[in-house]
Amino acid sequence: MRIATLTSGGDCPGLNAVIRGVVRTATGLGATVVGYEDGWTGLVEDRRVQLYDDEEIDRILLRGGTILGTGRLKTSDFEASIDRVKENLADAGIDALIAIGGEGTLKGARWLHDNGVPVVGVPKTIDNDVNATDYTFGFDSAVAVATDAIDRLHTTAESHNRVMIVQVMGRHVGWIALHAGMAGGAHDILIPEHPFDIEDVCKRMARRFQMGEKYGIIVVAEGAMPKEGTFVMPEREVDQFGHQKFDDIGAVIAHEIENRLDTDVRSTVLGHIQRGGTPTAFDRVLATRYAVHATKAALRGDFGRVVALRGETVKLVSFEEAVGQLKVVPDHRWESALSLLG
Amino acid sequence: MRIATLTSGGDCPGLNAVIRGVVRTATGLGATVVGYEDGWTGLVEDRRVQLYDDEEIDRILLRGGTILGTGRLKTSDFEASIDRVKENLADAGIDALIAIGGEGTLKGARWLHDNGVPVVGVPKTIDNDVNATDYTFGFDSAVAVATDAIDRLHTTAESHNRVMIVQVMGRHVGWIALHAGMAGGAHDILIPEHPFDIEDVCKRMARRFQMGEKYGIIVVAEGAMPKEGTFVMPEREVDQFGHQKFDDIGAVIAHEIENRLDTDVRSTVLGHIQRGGTPTAFDRVLATRYAVHATKAALRGDFGRVVALRGETVKLVSFEEAVGQLKVVPDHRWESALSLLG
Amino acid sequence: MRIATLTSGGDCPGLNAVIRGVVRTATGLGATVVGYEDGWTGLVEDRRVQLYDDEEIDRILLRGGTILGTGRLKTSDFEASIDRVKENLADAGIDALIAIGGEGTLKGARWLHDNGVPVVGVPKTIDNDVNATDYTFGFDSAVAVATDAIDRLHTTAESHNRVMIVQVMGRHVGWIALHAGMAGGAHDILIPEHPFDIEDVCKRMARRFQMGEKYGIIVVAEGAMPKEGTFVMPEREVDQFGHQKFDDIGAVIAHEIENRLDTDVRSTVLGHIQRGGTPTAFDRVLATRYAVHATKAALRGDFGRVVALRGETVKLVSFEEAVGQLKVVPDHRWESALSLLG
Amino acid sequence: MRIATLTSGGDCPGLNAVIRGVVRTATGLGATVVGYEDGWTGLVEDRRVQLYDDEEIDRILLRGGTILGTGRLKTSDFEASIDRVKENLADAGIDALIAIGGEGTLKGARWLHDNGVPVVGVPKTIDNDVNATDYTFGFDSAVAVATDAIDRLHTTAESHNRVMIVQVMGRHVGWIALHAGMAGGAHDILIPEHPFDIEDVCKRMARRFQMGEKYGIIVVAEGAMPKEGTFVMPEREVDQFGHQKFDDIGAVIAHEIENRLDTDVRSTVLGHIQRGGTPTAFDRVLATRYAVHATKAALRGDFGRVVALRGETVKLVSFEEAVGQLKVVPDHRWESALSLLG
Repeated sequence: MRIATLTSGGDCPGLNAVIRGVVRTATGLGATVVGYEDGWTGLVEDRRVQLYDDEEIDRILLRGGTILGTGRLKTSDFEASIDRVKENLADAGIDALIAIGGEGTLKGARWLHDNGVPVVGVPKTIDNDVNATDYTFGFDSAVAVATDAIDRLHTTAESHNRVMIVQVMGRHVGWIALHAGMAGGAHDILIPEHPFDIEDVCKRMARRFQMGEKYGIIVVAEGAMPKEGTFVMPEREVDQFGHQKFDDIGAVIAHEIENRLDTDVRSTVLGHIQRGGTPTAFDRVLATRYAVHATKAALRGDFGRVVALRGETVKLVSFEEAVGQLKVVPDHRWESALSLLG
Repeated sequence: MRIATLTSGGDCPGLNAVIRGVVRTATGLGATVVGYEDGWTGLVEDRRVQLYDDEEIDRILLRGGTILGTGRLKTSDFEASIDRVKENLADAGIDALIAIGGEGTLKGARWLHDNGVPVVGVPKTIDNDVNATDYTFGFDSAVAVATDAIDRLHTTAESHNRVMIVQVMGRHVGWIALHAGMAGGAHDILIPEHPFDIEDVCKRMARRFQMGEKYGIIVVAEGAMPKEGTFVMPEREVDQFGHQKFDDIGAVIAHEIENRLDTDVRSTVLGHIQRGGTPTAFDRVLATRYAVHATKAALRGDFGRVVALRGETVKLVSFEEAVGQLKVVPDHRWESALSLLG
Repeated sequence: MRIATLTSGGDCPGLNAVIRGVVRTATGLGATVVGYEDGWTGLVEDRRVQLYDDEEIDRILLRGGTILGTGRLKTSDFEASIDRVKENLADAGIDALIAIGGEGTLKGARWLHDNGVPVVGVPKTIDNDVNATDYTFGFDSAVAVATDAIDRLHTTAESHNRVMIVQVMGRHVGWIALHAGMAGGAHDILIPEHPFDIEDVCKRMARRFQMGEKYGIIVVAEGAMPKEGTFVMPEREVDQFGHQKFDDIGAVIAHEIENRLDTDVRSTVLGHIQRGGTPTAFDRVLATRYAVHATKAALRGDFGRVVALRGETVKLVSFEEAVGQLKVVPDHRWESALSLLG
Repeated sequence: MRIATLTSGGDCPGLNAVIRGVVRTATGLGATVVGYEDGWTGLVEDRRVQLYDDEEIDRILLRGGTILGTGRLKTSDFEASIDRVKENLADAGIDALIAIGGEGTLKGARWLHDNGVPVVGVPKTIDNDVNATDYTFGFDSAVAVATDAIDRLHTTAESHNRVMIVQVMGRHVGWIALHAGMAGGAHDILIPEHPFDIEDVCKRMARRFQMGEKYGIIVVAEGAMPKEGTFVMPEREVDQFGHQKFDDIGAVIAHEIENRLDTDVRSTVLGHIQRGGTPTAFDRVLATRYAVHATKAALRGDFGRVVALRGETVKLVSFEEAVGQLKVVPDHRWESALSLLG
């Protein structure tokens, strides 16, 4: 048998661990593997490389990003190319495609499958917002990087009696902010799921100072929003895909707090370092388990499904389940985090 | 209300995160917290400290070990002291006890509860072998330390064309070896659940060399055992508790491989570094969630239970469920790891 | 004897290691130690704490920042308080003051010494720009943080075929950019000592792409400046001390490159994480050696000098030597870095 | 011009950084580079690979070990092969050889040079014992690994009121023990340069306990020796090169302390993890600077010398200076460390 794989969407730690896992599992079971370059684009343009189970592949387990490259193809362009995609797969003798990616990629994979391509999906997102799975790989690594940064900010905030704001990834969901905030011992956490009242934020911080504490750490998801009617956000720029740019929320909040409290406030935007670098052991294990399960599913012809972690077990779920809706931070998680703030 | 807490058994990263979480949650809800020193011993001897929700407590989130100290009290000594324990708790005005520990500690906690002490348990083990919970805190940190060591050993093994054996914790279960081995890209993994045949180990390694690879990494749980009739283990020393000492399995295997293959083999025992140091973000989050749930259970009088992670949710389970039997590596996990070896 | 110490100026990893080293060395030699809070301000306002050689002090070796707090006092305010400072020191029975800080602090220390206060200086700067010493502590830690970030950016830049710009600390000198750039394998490095020509930067990057490379990493010191006549920098804001704010140079360069090359360019500002967190082993050793030498100098009455690393030896140099002029990146270092760019 | 390079002796972090630096510098200056495999052996057997300045070479900057492999050739075998070596170099058109290695390698390099081969040496040793240079690369990484381990052991020692012994590399010199001990806040440090009296070690530790401390950390270089007449070391095994094996000194000391003090003592041997893995930023910069200087020396025909760090400058020194004698820990360093023990 001959398996193809590709990585699409934003990169994250663990993509290479999946690629390695697919190659080793498939090779061990007598199949061969090719990789398409730069996501769906490479599939459409038929740019592919043979992947061998050698020391080179073995070593990518530790490497962030994806050796296959990634890309973002417009859905319409993609759908217009369905015939070419099928031709390319047929010409290359591909029996199964393992598509590794986030929400958008999995929707594309589902559409391909609905149009007759034998696909297995592997969910990937830094943001941990895929519905069907307890965790996506990349998330733990992003939280680890953000937590390490928060640990560092504690000591400098404390030395200077400052409030430090750290803006982490999460446009639509607050998972990274929640976990990094809990792990980093943040004194406030602001997430998209719960619009914040700047007056409340200031009150919590003021109470800390009244209790004799000298500094504070606030973790802000980039998609955090003020409650209606509290203060007016500066208008956000819109990027080429029509998404608002969220580069500024930390700085905006810093400004608002400085206006209200007599304290020095600094803001740090973590940015791209959250998605790069060697994956944590947790993410390497998860990515590898996904790879083994997806490959075995592909080899036995169990298509149209997505691997997912449920408790201690990796399962196969339907595309519907996986991409139906974003997994947001549930109320019970938010409430237990609130016990620790202030 | 007045809550007491203590940590018992071997230390592991995240104990302090639980203590901090208990103090912050309880204080925020109007309760006070005392800590007993050195595990059950401190409870028996009435050595306790008041724990305040200040910057000092806040900072222990990052610190390995336990600020309360830990200890191992013989069950018989413990049981003989039940009246004194009850008196001590009554004198100190304690309404609830949160006991943090492993198998042994939880059994003690259950016995206390059966004898009328209001207890909530928090499971703790490096080894991840508590039955009722998907993960115990400390495990992820131990795996991270072991994986980091394996990453380092790859480069030196490769430079010298050697086989490197790394012995990790796990006397009765192979969780650390399994996860660190998968995360570290080990070429063989030996765990207590599956006695190994030294000839098979050598065959797998020999095949690697035949394929042109130049080196190999083998991860061995300290409790790994050869299959009956394969080779004779040197007799193991027995410690004061009647446990066999497992200091040597890596070196024994190294010796056996050197006898069978014409290759340089070295063994490294990771030892205590696996249980020390700053917990990973994952463990800090898990320990903190346990703390919040255990404290809330204690405050509402929900005694006789143990917090446990099930999928994405922290639940309360019975002592029976938690301490009934060790959680071993299940077959489906072992089989998917096997796909990646060699 | 009775020694006082204080930390002043921006915080950096290793300050606590010096404080610990002073306390342990002095206590071991029979002296006592007090710490003034928040830099010169605490000295003027007579806010001090007794420092004991206990486990608490021992543990700060690992902690970033400074347990004494720091501050920035205006030189004029400071000089106006000389009588009060002398009174405070006399009242507290202080025989010697160990002042830990950067350029500004050491100038203050020198002025105090010239006015009759027995002072020993310990140089501290993230930026490594103190003239008399090969290295200042904090620098190695800052470079380590920046290098770790660059390592992460490589993998994401490579996956997306992007140019990544990372802005590091260094308003007046390029040491952090130079070392992190070399350690991180940057393809271009821009430092204040050598104004850059944006056309040259683009040419080097374009040549990379022509050679088949897919991405590039550029490390920019925050004080990097374009060559006169190349392009006009947006006007910089000026802070309360009359310093230009340098928040934007990475973004400005990203914009300029995107205008000139047909490529995706992203910019990341590392910010305060470079000055926080556990110091590297190198910085802990250096800070501790400084502490031992400064304390011994203070105890034998060798005042008016600054500890400095020269090759393998810690020496005492005059204040003049230490604060005369900034230590910039010398030409031979710059030239050898250039061999590696592109 | 055509440059050859090879790595010989024990591997250490930074070897690949030198190889990369040589390739990039030489290629940038119009030369080509070949690498001989497995140290001198590859030179004798004419096993060589062409090294290109591509992304693959660029990436090894982060990788521990050496992509060229290393080996240990007996001096007599090596010297017998001088004609073959010269022939091999002449046949391959090599104009200069950059030999990267420790004491033994540099002696070989010097002998080659004396016999007419154009050689430049690059010193390499984990142990930091090369006489002519302030630091060798690999040392900072080894110290970082050991310090990280000591940090972890503090928390577990403290939780269990134990003495923890950690045995680090250093058969003949105590540099790693000294630096890791200082950085890790060890309470005792034992190095080969100063034979220890076990009674003194116990007294220092006993005094700690009398002062109310609960635990202790002792760092032991593997070559540490008891003072004559204090206690008898178990006889050491001798390896194939006639070197004594030093696997046991930590365990021996643990046993002796347990015999004398009523306390729990555990010993950990760090082993090979000290020489593997990603080099620290410090080592990457140092290795890269060595590479640039050695390559430029080779290209301008400045043979028969070794690169060395002196203060802030990389210089060329004679082979005599570099290999004359081991650089031991000098007395002033030892004395300043003693101030911090106990």
